[in-house]
Amino acid sequence: MHFKVRAAAKEDCKDISRMIMELAVYENMPDQVKTSHEDLERDGFSPNPFYECLIAEVPDEHKTKDGYTVVGYALYFYTYSTWKGRSVYMEDLYVMPDFRGKGIGTGLMAKVAQVGFMFHCMADPNWNSSIYLPCSLVGVEKQCVRLQLSVLDWNKPSLDFYIAKGAEDLTAKEGWHFLRFHGQTLDTLAKEAPKD
Amino acid sequence: MHFKVRAAAKEDCKDISRMIMELAVYENMPDQVKTSHEDLERDGFSPNPFYECLIAEVPDEHKTKDGYTVVGYALYFYTYSTWKGRSVYMEDLYVMPDFRGKGIGTGLMAKVAQVGFMFHCMADPNWNSSIYLPCSLVGVEKQCVRLQLSVLDWNKPSLDFYIAKGAEDLTAKEGWHFLRFHGQTLDTLAKEAPKD
Repeated sequence: MHFKVRAAAKEDCKDISRMIMELAVYENMPDQVKTSHEDLERDGFSPNPFYECLIAEVPDEHKTKDGYTVVGYALYFYTYSTWKGRSVYMEDLYVMPDFRGKGIGTGLMAKVAQVGFMFHCMADPNWNSSIYLPCSLVGVEKQCVRLQLSVLDWNKPSLDFYIAKGAEDLTAKEGWHFLRFHGQTLDTLAKEAPKD
Repeated sequence: MHFKVRAAAKEDCKDISRMIMELAVYENMPDQVKTSHEDLERDGFSPNPFYECLIAEVPDEHKTKDGYTVVGYALYFYTYSTWKGRSVYMEDLYVMPDFRGKGIGTGLMAKVAQVGFMFHCMADPNWNSSIYLPCSLVGVEKQCVRLQLSVLDWNKPSLDFYIAKGAEDLTAKEGWHFLRFHGQTLDTLAKEAPKD
C-alpha cells in the first residue's frame, strides 16, 4: 500500500492525540494518558519544542472506516550521551492495526534514524504558524550516533520487531534499569535544592 | 562542607570532560568515552543545545590535591512523555570520591529536579559567549512532571541512593527494557527511510 511519511504539522495534533490513546489502550493503560491535543500543540510546536513527530499518511482511497488518513506516527526527541554524544530517542512508534505489516512502522522508524543522522534544529521564524515544520527538517546535519527507545518486556511483538531490525537490548545485555521520580517524590526532591 | 551548585559555563567543559572520564573509569568502561571537551562545548553551548549541565564547586581551601574546585556535575536534557508531557532526564550524576557523603550529589540532583520544575528555555543572545547560561536558568516555568535516569544493576550504591530518594525502578516494576540502534544497525535502518 502506498503511504507517505512526513513531518507532523500543528493541525495533526488531534490525529496524534487519537493514536496516543489507541497505543495506550493496546498497552492496557488508557487511564494513564493526561496529555491533550492542546498540550501536544504547545509542547511540540513552539520555540525549543520538547519533541518532534513524523506521521504516516495513506491516500484517501485507503482511509479508515472513520475517515482517517493519518494511520501512524513516530514521536522522538534529541538526547545526549556523555560518552558518544548526540543521540535521538523514539518515545512512541505506532501504526493502526489495519495498516500493520505494510512497512509503515519500519518507514517511520527509519525516517527517525535518518532525521537523527541528517538534520539539525535551527531557529524557525514560523514556529507558531500552522505550517510549522519540526526543526529537525529545517536543515544541516545533526549527526546522532544512537537511536534509543524503551519497550515493555511483555510486548513481545514490538520487542521482536526492534531486535529483528538490529536493536540491542541493553537492559538484558548490560543490566540498565530505568528509574523515575514523579509526583510527591519529585516535589520533595526539588525542595532539597540548595539556595542559589 | 560548603559547596555551590551553579549552571556550567562553556569554560567548565574541561572539568566536565575530566569527570565524565572519572565516572567511566568507575563504571569500568573508560575506553567507551569518545566525547572531547570541544564536543561538549559545541553540543551544550550553542543554539538548541543537546544538554544542560550543573556543576558543584567547593571553595579554594577545599580544592583537590590536583587543584580542582569543580568536584561534581549533573548533566541532563528535556524529554517528553506522550502520556504525561514535559519531562527531564538526568544522563549523569557524579561527585568526586573525596567529596561524597556531604550532600553534594543530592544537591545536584535536587537542583535538576527544581530546574525541571521552575525554568523554561528562552532564546539567549549570549549563546556563544563564555558566560552563556543554560536556557533552563533563564526564566519562566518548565513544569516537568518527571525526572528520569538509568542505572546499571550492579551499581548498587547508586541504585540504593536513588531508591532512597524516592525513585521508582520501572524496569523492575513494569518491565521496561532499554533498546539501542547504533553503528551499522543505525546506518542500515536510516537507509530504509522512504524517499520524500
